[in-house]
Amino acid sequence: MKKKDKYNVAVVGAKGAVGSEMIKILEERKFPVAELRLFGSARSKGTSVRFQGRDVAVRELKFEPDEFQGIDIVLSSPGASVSTKFVPHAIKTGAVVIDNTSAFRMHPKVPLVVPEINPEDIKKHKGIIANPNCSAIIMLMAIAPLHKKSPAKRILCSTYQSASGAGAKAMKELEVQTRDFLDGKSIKKEVFPHQIAFNLFSHNSAVEENGYNGEELKMIQESQKILHDDSIRIVTTCVRVPVFRAHSETIYIEFERKITAEKARSILAKAPGIKLVDDQKNNYFPMPIEASGGNDVLVGRIREDLSCKNGLALFVAGDQLRKGAALNAVQIAEALVGS
Amino acid sequence: MKKKDKYNVAVVGAKGAVGSEMIKILEERKFPVAELRLFGSARSKGTSVRFQGRDVAVRELKFEPDEFQGIDIVLSSPGASVSTKFVPHAIKTGAVVIDNTSAFRMHPKVPLVVPEINPEDIKKHKGIIANPNCSAIIMLMAIAPLHKKSPAKRILCSTYQSASGAGAKAMKELEVQTRDFLDGKSIKKEVFPHQIAFNLFSHNSAVEENGYNGEELKMIQESQKILHDDSIRIVTTCVRVPVFRAHSETIYIEFERKITAEKARSILAKAPGIKLVDDQKNNYFPMPIEASGGNDVLVGRIREDLSCKNGLALFVAGDQLRKGAALNAVQIAEALVGS
Repeated sequence: MKKKDKYNVAVVGAKGAVGSEMIKILEERKFPVAELRLFGSARSKGTSVRFQGRDVAVRELKFEPDEFQGIDIVLSSPGASVSTKFVPHAIKTGAVVIDNTSAFRMHPKVPLVVPEINPEDIKKHKGIIANPNCSAIIMLMAIAPLHKKSPAKRILCSTYQSASGAGAKAMKELEVQTRDFLDGKSIKKEVFPHQIAFNLFSHNSAVEENGYNGEELKMIQESQKILHDDSIRIVTTCVRVPVFRAHSETIYIEFERKITAEKARSILAKAPGIKLVDDQKNNYFPMPIEASGGNDVLVGRIREDLSCKNGLALFVAGDQLRKGAALNAVQIAEALVGS
Repeated sequence: MKKKDKYNVAVVGAKGAVGSEMIKILEERKFPVAELRLFGSARSKGTSVRFQGRDVAVRELKFEPDEFQGIDIVLSSPGASVSTKFVPHAIKTGAVVIDNTSAFRMHPKVPLVVPEINPEDIKKHKGIIANPNCSAIIMLMAIAPLHKKSPAKRILCSTYQSASGAGAKAMKELEVQTRDFLDGKSIKKEVFPHQIAFNLFSHNSAVEENGYNGEELKMIQESQKILHDDSIRIVTTCVRVPVFRAHSETIYIEFERKITAEKARSILAKAPGIKLVDDQKNNYFPMPIEASGGNDVLVGRIREDLSCKNGLALFVAGDQLRKGAALNAVQIAEALVGS
């Protein structure tokens, strides 16, 4: 991207859980923003968002050819179908789109990037850079530094995913259902298909014929793409839990050569974007409430796998809205402008 | 055990979460009880429990040589240290103790029994039959029927354990903390070391030098003992989640020979104590709220493991207080008296 002092940035899905976080992070990290142009659905029309001390109006996205005129970078987090429709216009008028939806992630010509892992892929873009699935990012942040020392051959992951992954309305549903449950009232389900208060259930994405749901398949396919290795065998089970934000995961990894728990600890302690939380004596390990609102993926419970020669077991927690989505997208934008 | 019309039964820990459930289940399943003698700690003295339409007083357990005089069967669920102290007295006066604590589980001469899996071990008892760890029971209920068709070689499990596993006070703590959190009040921690409301954390049992906590090691060692196979390689990660009762688990199993998902479904559909909940079309799978209060372990998300040739992936939910503890103990008692 052509070097400038400041860039015109658009955010699509500006009122959503991820979009709001993108705007916050642009400000926090002092991204060199000239114009900030915000887009939302018809429902967001007339609203505004505070940015650098002023109110920025949210426009209705109309899928018109010129609504991204003059924009350098689009941070996009609407639904996948919305991205498919507006992205071609935005590219045509010269913007680079960093898209958080699943619309383009597996397209062979679209880089899928976690800046700590495969930053070199950013420069291969042809107008779109895809931001990976949140659970995949959080898992790979812990695996990639180890994978560089000894290739991962097999990964088995189970997730503990927060309500935030289904958006702001889902977080509200967790709160409302919890109050209603404690007050002995009947539970109303609007966002999730099942009660989320004091319950957990298999991830609410569609289940394919092989029994895996969309979220699980995203984690598998996107991880192979980001690590540039289709031979890594991966299996995942994705579960929604009654936590507001930040996803947790148990991860079992088999490596080509043994990595001791001690060695893994020293590798992860130095890895960017990771915070080691592995205090065995005090039974203090990663927790979603401590990952929430933070930029680092917390990693702990580092153990040699008792069931396998070259295996490690880990437990991680990362903010789904930040490193799992908005922060990763802004980091891609930073790399793009070379800041 | 000598055949009688009715048996004198004692319950130790009668006011605890598991003990209360034992008494309920004795009544529900019409166990042939003559005298019901209830024991609790000094705190329980003067209280009583309703059983078959009358109030039975709870006595203080005093660790005296004759307090189990005349008792045929003791259902025991106090702390492990309490069991160690009272069990020798109870055996001496002729009772058979079915002990739910970890005190005797790994003793080579003590049978460790899940009646659906290894009922033949019951008759080897020398006065004590141990009731396994709740997470181990729930995991094995799903694995054992498959293991009979093709031996399991490796098991990788991640748990989603409810507050009930830490007793009635822990369940209350989840409720109180949740209310306080929603009301913006500060969170008080008494039972659990970390906030349980809208959070999750590594299981609160002591962590050993190899990084595994007590709960994880129990699941591993007890499973090998129950399946009579120390060569099965097992790894577990135990996590506490904000659910009141019923534990859930993701399980990956590698078998000696392939079992297809379809075959696994037909095996599990016929297995006693299991309810198949595997409706892919409606995204309807095991959930702790639906396992709570029930006797069956719910099993679903049955998939062929994409990362391994002869592997299956499962998701299970089972009531920790019932099949995970009290029901299993009463089932052992039933087998013992041949009812």
